[in-house]
Amino acid sequence: MAQDKKMVTQITSMDDNFAQWYTDICKKADLIDYSSVKGCMIIRPYGYAIWELIQGILDKKFKEKGHENVYMPMFIPESLLQKEKDHVAGFAPEVAWVTQGGSEPLTERLCVRPTSETLFCDHFANIIHSYRDLPKLYNQWCSVVRWEKTTRPFLRSREFLWQEGHTMHATAEEAERETVQQLEVYNDFFENDLAIPVIKGKKTESDKFAGAVATYAIEALMHDGKALQAATSHYFGDGFAKAFNITYTDKENKICYPHQTSWGSSTRMIGAIIMSHGDDNGLVLPPAVAPIQLVILPIAQHKPGVLDKANQLKNRLSKVCRVKLDDSDNSAGWKFSEYEMKGVPVRLEIGPRDIENNECVLVTRHNREKTVVSLDELETAVTEKLEEVRKGIYEKALENRKNKTYVCKTTDEIKSALSEKGDGFVKAMWCGNEECEDKVKELTGVGSRCIPLVSEHLSDTCVCCGKPAKHMVLWAIAY
Amino acid sequence: MAQDKKMVTQITSMDDNFAQWYTDICKKADLIDYSSVKGCMIIRPYGYAIWELIQGILDKKFKEKGHENVYMPMFIPESLLQKEKDHVAGFAPEVAWVTQGGSEPLTERLCVRPTSETLFCDHFANIIHSYRDLPKLYNQWCSVVRWEKTTRPFLRSREFLWQEGHTMHATAEEAERETVQQLEVYNDFFENDLAIPVIKGKKTESDKFAGAVATYAIEALMHDGKALQAATSHYFGDGFAKAFNITYTDKENKICYPHQTSWGSSTRMIGAIIMSHGDDNGLVLPPAVAPIQLVILPIAQHKPGVLDKANQLKNRLSKVCRVKLDDSDNSAGWKFSEYEMKGVPVRLEIGPRDIENNECVLVTRHNREKTVVSLDELETAVTEKLEEVRKGIYEKALENRKNKTYVCKTTDEIKSALSEKGDGFVKAMWCGNEECEDKVKELTGVGSRCIPLVSEHLSDTCVCCGKPAKHMVLWAIAY
Repeated sequence: MAQDKKMVTQITSMDDNFAQWYTDICKKADLIDYSSVKGCMIIRPYGYAIWELIQGILDKKFKEKGHENVYMPMFIPESLLQKEKDHVAGFAPEVAWVTQGGSEPLTERLCVRPTSETLFCDHFANIIHSYRDLPKLYNQWCSVVRWEKTTRPFLRSREFLWQEGHTMHATAEEAERETVQQLEVYNDFFENDLAIPVIKGKKTESDKFAGAVATYAIEALMHDGKALQAATSHYFGDGFAKAFNITYTDKENKICYPHQTSWGSSTRMIGAIIMSHGDDNGLVLPPAVAPIQLVILPIAQHKPGVLDKANQLKNRLSKVCRVKLDDSDNSAGWKFSEYEMKGVPVRLEIGPRDIENNECVLVTRHNREKTVVSLDELETAVTEKLEEVRKGIYEKALENRKNKTYVCKTTDEIKSALSEKGDGFVKAMWCGNEECEDKVKELTGVGSRCIPLVSEHLSDTCVCCGKPAKHMVLWAIAY
Repeated sequence: MAQDKKMVTQITSMDDNFAQWYTDICKKADLIDYSSVKGCMIIRPYGYAIWELIQGILDKKFKEKGHENVYMPMFIPESLLQKEKDHVAGFAPEVAWVTQGGSEPLTERLCVRPTSETLFCDHFANIIHSYRDLPKLYNQWCSVVRWEKTTRPFLRSREFLWQEGHTMHATAEEAERETVQQLEVYNDFFENDLAIPVIKGKKTESDKFAGAVATYAIEALMHDGKALQAATSHYFGDGFAKAFNITYTDKENKICYPHQTSWGSSTRMIGAIIMSHGDDNGLVLPPAVAPIQLVILPIAQHKPGVLDKANQLKNRLSKVCRVKLDDSDNSAGWKFSEYEMKGVPVRLEIGPRDIENNECVLVTRHNREKTVVSLDELETAVTEKLEEVRKGIYEKALENRKNKTYVCKTTDEIKSALSEKGDGFVKAMWCGNEECEDKVKELTGVGSRCIPLVSEHLSDTCVCCGKPAKHMVLWAIAY
């Protein structure tokens, strides 16, 4: 139609080309735009509003556990980055270096933070002296930079937004508890708020964070059968404390090293939402992070009374959810497509006949199911529908994961499962030897994602070498 | 006392050494720490909590006016920065340059954003095509970098946190209205939320933002008589639009350039709070941005019933304000000093005798006034006290400004006013000639801060050359 602001054009089907489908949604749902800065993306208002909702929920959860927000500098002097040897080895190859300030070359080059362990440790050394100063439970919301060669919106970009928690504890036990507690916070956020089923696990030695004693992660399976590391939580022991000379005096007046954790999650979560819940009509948003939870579309809005009624409903519903009324002169067809593309969980249609009958139509995004509801019970019906969407998309994602999880006893079984059923999670036993881990990847394409905290005994022997197995490992091709 | 977490040490008196007093507060109130990164500061939890409250209030005000948040890359390619000639001339000398990514030198160096006009324009060129795409009302919360030589916490540091609004409009009139509207938003925030009296004005030609047609600002007078530019709002006309080739098709199908604004405020506002309201006992926080609005200090807390009662009051008061109960074993004297240092607006003392009498003592931070109030009316009394603090500190700051504002007709009058009464705002007429502006500064030390929007006719002639005056100008030494 001539008066349409823009046409909602068809996007690539996810079955035809999943990567293109993903990029189409990022652009067509107005989440991002590309910029003149290679490898960096622009997060547009609709995408940023999702991020703000994610931030709001996580920030509240962190604060409830006693964490406080701080802000550290975005630059790390090279000498500071080098203080912990494993850490610098892990990050130096992928950082951006500032070498000039104003018109003068710097005497020491600064990297733009890829993560802030070293900055936090430098600060902790200043402010931790006594057991009374512990624990320190800090979190930071900021952007970080990692000089990636190939980039994709939300999943991998040279700059991304994230939060990084950094905590210091008197004992190893307390720090380990914190590591697992924060993994649980992420798990709860994914399972309940984002409606994405995840598996909690420990990373193998070869896959740990640079400088960590242990790395935990939650792993989600995307619609295409590839895995996505959704958030991580690390236990550092006292390695950084020793490297940065952070000490405290305990109750017996003894000098001790504190024990450390860090944990993080990023705008990558938006990628996880797209690839867990999206379909060929566009984005499908979990209600908790949907900037618009319900859109009201008046039908035959030029007819007397329709817009008045739509506005009344908007006022009523704004008390129970984030609601938008689209009374623009775009066609109804355009509006349907537009809000489906944007993943709005519930659509409310109201026209002259509905008004006569004191009812309206609610349509849930994920299954396009229509329900006629009485206007007398609208608030309850909408609240129920939002919960229905949350449960519905969780079940759908869980079903996808179930269909794409393969228990395998040999690398041949892995190969045939993947070639017959497509990419997915492989559950298989492992001897604990890094060589076998590498060989599984070489032979089958899937890498170890984690050792799930809830283990199953699938067999007695390693999927690769046949020697006695130590762990059940979750394997997959990962984003 | 041995069990005190730390001693609240005396800070430098503001009359002895204002600069040292300021730095003492930044450190002793736990607002900041210095870092190994020269010229960059660490914002500690208490300082960051103030910033979060500032963000919360401003963000709501912006969104109420229809603005949406976005996120742009933190890097600007050199060629993009150079597109608008006045802009690059203003900023190039003070930016940090990234010249290496990972192990490879970049083919084009990138500056870390000192402000994001060029990035927004690059994006606007992509997304603005028709009059239907206007206005674009965007805001961004982020950190920016300016390679300053001398730095001071909050006031001037190489990296700082801020918000930058960037808007595009169909007409010049609409953009000019936006510029003034946002100046008004800042004005309202300072006057009502931060309780800091400010003067709205227009910058002279020589003091405009790099690339702007007109720059507006609000100016506040600090306790020591120096001025602080608290926030700015710029009108750009279509200069950037032309440089970046941003065009739209209007209703008559004509190709037009849109008109632009930007406006910003930063962590500098925390510096303004310290220097407007602080005293020799430490920080004094406006209730709206106080992380703790009321602290409960139980007296003789080991006596039966005291802590129970204090906890009851905490629960009651948490419904009307941000409340903290300090039941640590630190001495009462230590606690008094600690919460005065941290600027907590109201202190509540409750001991065994108060409980017997069904009352407690409220002490307002800014004037140490004590009021005995009945526990039956506690919520009302606390709400009133918080409002009393807000009004009280505003009046105090206004009084300071009145005492330090001098009307002068000649440069000699300026010199004698400043030497007799100390630094302050000078109101004097000006012919509009840049040479006179420079000469006033050279002769007296004060520079033009702004041409107040509410003008007064002080005399017919320029304070410097004696020729006919065009404007009343506000002059001062500035932070």
